[in-house]
Amino acid sequence: MSILEQSRWRYATKKFDPSKKVDEKLVAQIVEAAHLAPTSSGLQPYKLLVITNQELKEKIVGIAFDQQQVADCSHLLVFAGWDNYTEERIDHIYGITTKERGQAPDRYKAYTDRLKAAYLNRPASENFDHIARQSYIAFAYAIAMAAELKVDATPMEGFDNAALDQLLGLNSKGLKSVTMLPLGYRDETNDWLVNQKKVRHPLSEFLITIE
Amino acid sequence: MSILEQSRWRYATKKFDPSKKVDEKLVAQIVEAAHLAPTSSGLQPYKLLVITNQELKEKIVGIAFDQQQVADCSHLLVFAGWDNYTEERIDHIYGITTKERGQAPDRYKAYTDRLKAAYLNRPASENFDHIARQSYIAFAYAIAMAAELKVDATPMEGFDNAALDQLLGLNSKGLKSVTMLPLGYRDETNDWLVNQKKVRHPLSEFLITIE
Repeated sequence: MSILEQSRWRYATKKFDPSKKVDEKLVAQIVEAAHLAPTSSGLQPYKLLVITNQELKEKIVGIAFDQQQVADCSHLLVFAGWDNYTEERIDHIYGITTKERGQAPDRYKAYTDRLKAAYLNRPASENFDHIARQSYIAFAYAIAMAAELKVDATPMEGFDNAALDQLLGLNSKGLKSVTMLPLGYRDETNDWLVNQKKVRHPLSEFLITIE
Repeated sequence: MSILEQSRWRYATKKFDPSKKVDEKLVAQIVEAAHLAPTSSGLQPYKLLVITNQELKEKIVGIAFDQQQVADCSHLLVFAGWDNYTEERIDHIYGITTKERGQAPDRYKAYTDRLKAAYLNRPASENFDHIARQSYIAFAYAIAMAAELKVDATPMEGFDNAALDQLLGLNSKGLKSVTMLPLGYRDETNDWLVNQKKVRHPLSEFLITIE
């Protein structure tokens, strides 16, 4: 099934059936899609949390403007970005890269020197903004992959990031939350959005062609 | 073919074969994937430019750190976000939504009032940051869709946004450039990256499970 058909099928689920759990094999594929997503300079500056602990999910509802999907979902994904770019983090992934590709350890030194020159003197907030944007690519891949597997999901930005960071101990891991993606199966009879038409701007407004 | 296989196949193309053009039907599907991508509150706060004009593409190379893919590609996609949220823009998409869904015009009034209260008093820069993040979802969908169609692509952030905005007249359209995605077909013999292993952080570092 094409991404196009998957995208027409999916919607931001408003009500999950809490009795239906997503098979771990499907969750693993959604994680893998996020893991394979491309990022700027391949830095992959984020981690993915998968939360199934019910007590914890219920605590998160309160810091997510009472969105009940967080409690009712089967698996809660949290995308958490690095709090900043650092020399160690850049060197770490390029160390892995040269090793995996069987290259000399200094193969990308000129390149990583340029990255460090660009990033390490910028304010952490500016770097985190860049990092958060990368996380959205993985977030999008997870949304699309869930749809491919006919797993319902609710893309979420609306929560108290600082409170979630504290609850999950993200600060001590050098991370900051970006988005959440509850996964599960829709409760068709109680979800007002399930049968509503998907609406986008007309293509004539969306697309600008310069030939 | 699954998003997973597509993602393993794709790579950030470093050298396109300028003689190979992407069929317009395939480009239309990539545009459609970007068009169907989900966004915060469904605002879809961006437009997509598709540029095939060779002279213009060559001008853009100079403001994209001389990345030759911009000239050599078949179609250059530019993702451009709204420069800000406005009352008119929010009302416009919700006007389309109620019409398409056959709902009363004030069906989402309480909801859009909350959106306006949240967005319209924030600095434009903060809103644009949020808008840019939404654009990355569509950007990711386009990247994934290109891979599904075996069209090569190079996700790009590295360019002079202000210069591109000026060249394309985006400011007068109330838009600001976010990312570019040259599309085309790889030049296998001259692309150093084509046969390099795709590298990510080990899953054990990437994934944090809380049961």
